[in-house]
Amino acid sequence: MKTRVGIVGGSGYSGEELLRIMLSHPRAELTAVTSRQYARQSLAQIFPKFAHHPQAKKLKFTEPQADLLAREADLIFLALPHGVAAEYALPLLKLGRKVIDLSADFRLKSAAVYKEFYAHDHPAPELLAQAVYGLPEIYRDKIRQAKLVASPGCYPTSVLLPIIPLLKAGLIKSTGIIADCLSGVSGAGRKVELDYLFVECNESVRPYGVPKHRHLSEIEQELSVAAGETVTIQFTPHLVPINRGILSTLYLAPEKHFSTEQEMKQLAGKITACYQAAYELEPFVRLLEGKALPDTKNVTGTNVIEIAWRLDQRTGRLIVMSAEDNLVKGASGQAVQSMNLMCDFPEADGLI
Amino acid sequence: MKTRVGIVGGSGYSGEELLRIMLSHPRAELTAVTSRQYARQSLAQIFPKFAHHPQAKKLKFTEPQADLLAREADLIFLALPHGVAAEYALPLLKLGRKVIDLSADFRLKSAAVYKEFYAHDHPAPELLAQAVYGLPEIYRDKIRQAKLVASPGCYPTSVLLPIIPLLKAGLIKSTGIIADCLSGVSGAGRKVELDYLFVECNESVRPYGVPKHRHLSEIEQELSVAAGETVTIQFTPHLVPINRGILSTLYLAPEKHFSTEQEMKQLAGKITACYQAAYELEPFVRLLEGKALPDTKNVTGTNVIEIAWRLDQRTGRLIVMSAEDNLVKGASGQAVQSMNLMCDFPEADGLI
Amino acid sequence: MKTRVGIVGGSGYSGEELLRIMLSHPRAELTAVTSRQYARQSLAQIFPKFAHHPQAKKLKFTEPQADLLAREADLIFLALPHGVAAEYALPLLKLGRKVIDLSADFRLKSAAVYKEFYAHDHPAPELLAQAVYGLPEIYRDKIRQAKLVASPGCYPTSVLLPIIPLLKAGLIKSTGIIADCLSGVSGAGRKVELDYLFVECNESVRPYGVPKHRHLSEIEQELSVAAGETVTIQFTPHLVPINRGILSTLYLAPEKHFSTEQEMKQLAGKITACYQAAYELEPFVRLLEGKALPDTKNVTGTNVIEIAWRLDQRTGRLIVMSAEDNLVKGASGQAVQSMNLMCDFPEADGLI
Amino acid sequence: MKTRVGIVGGSGYSGEELLRIMLSHPRAELTAVTSRQYARQSLAQIFPKFAHHPQAKKLKFTEPQADLLAREADLIFLALPHGVAAEYALPLLKLGRKVIDLSADFRLKSAAVYKEFYAHDHPAPELLAQAVYGLPEIYRDKIRQAKLVASPGCYPTSVLLPIIPLLKAGLIKSTGIIADCLSGVSGAGRKVELDYLFVECNESVRPYGVPKHRHLSEIEQELSVAAGETVTIQFTPHLVPINRGILSTLYLAPEKHFSTEQEMKQLAGKITACYQAAYELEPFVRLLEGKALPDTKNVTGTNVIEIAWRLDQRTGRLIVMSAEDNLVKGASGQAVQSMNLMCDFPEADGLI
Repeated sequence: MKTRVGIVGGSGYSGEELLRIMLSHPRAELTAVTSRQYARQSLAQIFPKFAHHPQAKKLKFTEPQADLLAREADLIFLALPHGVAAEYALPLLKLGRKVIDLSADFRLKSAAVYKEFYAHDHPAPELLAQAVYGLPEIYRDKIRQAKLVASPGCYPTSVLLPIIPLLKAGLIKSTGIIADCLSGVSGAGRKVELDYLFVECNESVRPYGVPKHRHLSEIEQELSVAAGETVTIQFTPHLVPINRGILSTLYLAPEKHFSTEQEMKQLAGKITACYQAAYELEPFVRLLEGKALPDTKNVTGTNVIEIAWRLDQRTGRLIVMSAEDNLVKGASGQAVQSMNLMCDFPEADGLI
Repeated sequence: MKTRVGIVGGSGYSGEELLRIMLSHPRAELTAVTSRQYARQSLAQIFPKFAHHPQAKKLKFTEPQADLLAREADLIFLALPHGVAAEYALPLLKLGRKVIDLSADFRLKSAAVYKEFYAHDHPAPELLAQAVYGLPEIYRDKIRQAKLVASPGCYPTSVLLPIIPLLKAGLIKSTGIIADCLSGVSGAGRKVELDYLFVECNESVRPYGVPKHRHLSEIEQELSVAAGETVTIQFTPHLVPINRGILSTLYLAPEKHFSTEQEMKQLAGKITACYQAAYELEPFVRLLEGKALPDTKNVTGTNVIEIAWRLDQRTGRLIVMSAEDNLVKGASGQAVQSMNLMCDFPEADGLI
Repeated sequence: MKTRVGIVGGSGYSGEELLRIMLSHPRAELTAVTSRQYARQSLAQIFPKFAHHPQAKKLKFTEPQADLLAREADLIFLALPHGVAAEYALPLLKLGRKVIDLSADFRLKSAAVYKEFYAHDHPAPELLAQAVYGLPEIYRDKIRQAKLVASPGCYPTSVLLPIIPLLKAGLIKSTGIIADCLSGVSGAGRKVELDYLFVECNESVRPYGVPKHRHLSEIEQELSVAAGETVTIQFTPHLVPINRGILSTLYLAPEKHFSTEQEMKQLAGKITACYQAAYELEPFVRLLEGKALPDTKNVTGTNVIEIAWRLDQRTGRLIVMSAEDNLVKGASGQAVQSMNLMCDFPEADGLI
Repeated sequence: MKTRVGIVGGSGYSGEELLRIMLSHPRAELTAVTSRQYARQSLAQIFPKFAHHPQAKKLKFTEPQADLLAREADLIFLALPHGVAAEYALPLLKLGRKVIDLSADFRLKSAAVYKEFYAHDHPAPELLAQAVYGLPEIYRDKIRQAKLVASPGCYPTSVLLPIIPLLKAGLIKSTGIIADCLSGVSGAGRKVELDYLFVECNESVRPYGVPKHRHLSEIEQELSVAAGETVTIQFTPHLVPINRGILSTLYLAPEKHFSTEQEMKQLAGKITACYQAAYELEPFVRLLEGKALPDTKNVTGTNVIEIAWRLDQRTGRLIVMSAEDNLVKGASGQAVQSMNLMCDFPEADGLI
């Protein structure tokens, strides 16, 4: 029998992507999807693109109600704005359901940092300790045991996966890290605001949220864990006119200075070995070889993150670049990857 | 009587933009435009978008010939690939004509650096000493006197104008500079290559030329002049799916450490004063105020560069961001600005 | 002394384009711009892209008030949604001011047709008789004398200019006309609605308003005038992911049947002659020759409409295609063309 | 055991899409892929986006050779330009292999019509009689028995599926049909030509191939079969700046005149019944209901064609609109649908 899955907040872009993946998942069955806005309409009516799935014709959006959800589903995804996930997570966990939250609400270990970055008190600080940060490549074993998974943000995923192995291996300094990131417009969610109109985004490239974007908090938390000391980074997000995709360019300082050709080769060998050890067997991390550099179009619609790097002999820096689909590896695909782990399914189920 | 102007190589994107500007210039008249490919066809036939200009109907592309050009024009723009400009610059200068070169051929002072970055011997090293780097905001007086102007590259313009005043004022360190840049596809020129097909660029964001792009050479040359010492920087270009525009994000280290709110305010005051002194009266530099950040769509089709900056108290860094149209301020508009100076015209003629 | 010009509703896309044109107009001066939303802020603050115009720094948006406007301006553009233009047009006309309305409010001669298509009573039916339909190529002399000009819609302009000369010359039947039209997203105005978000429009092509779009009413009114009998047409608008531009494909039935090569040539000769007679001297109509077909990118930012046509020997049809910039020839450029006529300026002032 | 499948010409956009589908097909295994250009390189090297499929790492492109292919595969897709498919089809069929050709070479029944539209003699006229036109919704039974399937063109699919049932049912006239079609740029193939550069396509909408595009020939052939008489139509293709998708707007004349509300309702009932009978059970035809109209973004990446229609009481016309992904239902997805039929697999295998 398939695991019964519910989605709370199925009408945003992440919710829509979750629907797409879950409608075709071989071992799970969508049994409940909530949306205040679309309540009582079928998935097929709201998202014609899913209308050829029989389940999309049958299943109707309902008003969100925790007790109802607990009856209809064994595992529930929360795809809601930050600040409101606790309202569902608390009763669902109490009723013994597994919860995967796609918002920022359970990603931080510290309620104080949450308040600093999100400008309101944390709604359920008692849950922070038990929540597992849902980055399978880093926390696979914890995720398997988790009841509450906080699925990472799109920017953090694109920054953390390339940097964490290097920090853990002591190959780079934990200071002076810069993350310069480009995001497609779906990263802003399905917000009906002037800034996200077609005419305002098309033929436009622009930075925003400089210098203190909210995602900094979880990036720094996780880098600090990897480094074993407090890490502070520079993070500059930009909006680019594509629907999906994040391209991150990371400027890093190798722990060991290199200047000769030979020192560079030695260091390159260590970096190669570090990434191989970390990701060679990972189904969703693609280490690029030769002259290839990441390109968002090569990961669109997939749960893959591409990583490439270059040493610059002139400046002594290591530049690492990554590309992912912000709605898949950066949100819903990664959440399903966690679900697969929590449910003991093959990790790539529904994602290839 | 209007100054007679010629263009060699009028069929690329820079050439096309030069045509657009020069067709409407109040004090200059286009009298010769060359293109091997389009010889004997009128401008209107090749570029229907100019067909409503009477001059575009009359004027025909001709085969490029230096002596003919010298007869027909007082000032000649060279809009050619690097390596071939000397072939026209030499005879034209000998015949007493003024020359503005939009290629990289006369931007570097050192033939050796040219060879390192462009992989062939410089075709006319004897001209390097007399060529003036055509950045009007920096070299206005020299440009007025110049016979040969080397108009800057698109990336260099977007990096140099924001950084030079800070270096000159000693407000930032000359080490550790990072320029992370995004360029629209016209930056690659009208090259018929797979990489620039619509389907390959649309929905794609990608870095390229990492870590040693050719434009590094002129950026570092000019930053070194400003700093009074050799400057080496990190430069990462990216391709983004817009027709026009460059967005540069510059990571800089203030000379003076700041950590308290008050130290930050003091430094901010100095930066404000520095930029005001440098650019307040400049017609084509727009210093953004308040919460505004640069956006390529706000400069498209104009000769304006937008600049904004932020101090980051958490990291101690200064982040400066700029936006320009790569074909106007980054190429043809800036070249016309130099022409206006060389011809004693009002500097903004044809550009507003 | 320059003519003083005011704009009511300067914050939409048409208003913004009007600002762009009027800020550089050689014989008119912007003296008043209203916007409830942006009142008391300068043009430069709201539209950074105009910030290098001294007038944009000085001039502030004000609350719209007819009597104030009448004091500050000799001619007023109304760039408002339909239904509210009368509120300003009535008092301004009474005070002797000239008015150019860019909305649909004064385009129809019949208040009944207005109500049928716009679903509310006409707010000032007494003005309909005196309003002149602002298509300069068709009504040039009337516009010169007009106090109130109703500037045409974007779709109507792209359909009427290609068809009217053919109808007047009796070369095509007035029945069976089909207009299949593609519009860029700015055609929807700066409406903050889900349908116009970047992610909803990018990578999307879709019809809308089938089969009875509001613009039908003015298209049919003007075609009927040209034909001397009631004309009913088929009109299908589509939304395409470009910022600006309308491409119209018009399916027409020649009055005279042709099937042999010779008959086709004869008819082609007549069509050529008809268009030449109508438009050869028009500064803003570009009749394409040879193999050229209209392309929106060739008219973007200009007041030009491109027209090409083909006879199809297999079907006996005449296919006419046109391209224009919906915000310029389809809105604000055309309105300025009317202003130039009303003020006895050279017709192309500010538009080339 | 899985059916062994080969692809000749796997480097164009259709070939790439075939690869994507076949790499995940549950009952077939890719055993051979040819490409002169990429011979000896793995699929993963050329298409990084497939690199996470183990088969893409193992399988290498080879030089195309019919006898080799016959040994390695039971069924072969030909994804080649027109004119060269016969070179492979003839020997492969002789050796008992099944062939699905995605080019135009076997779509026409008449070698004379082929020569008229493709401007060269048909290379294997003797195969035309046995080739089955691969439109599963129309020729399902024949496809099941076929050795050689000619998979339809992208435009033809989008035009034929909406019109054929109406013609067969006698609900529309076979005369006066107009197909106005919009195609994404991948429809032009991976051709490295100036016309398809990003800068030339972005912000551009344009007609082409007016009035006699090659796809006319197969559209008219199949409509004539459905009507039982020779059908001549008007067909106007346009290029729009999206990667994938075709949107067709079809102007049709109902056989029975309608003018009253009641007549319209009756006719609407018949059309509804006609489409229901034809497509209700089809897995890849989505009949839109209510106010919904086709949108390419709702079918991108899927094998679905969306159809909606409207009766226009004012003009007496029936307007039918369809949307498909030109590379899936318009090319490779449909070819796989045929393969599923030929191999007795569930028809939707690999396609949902």
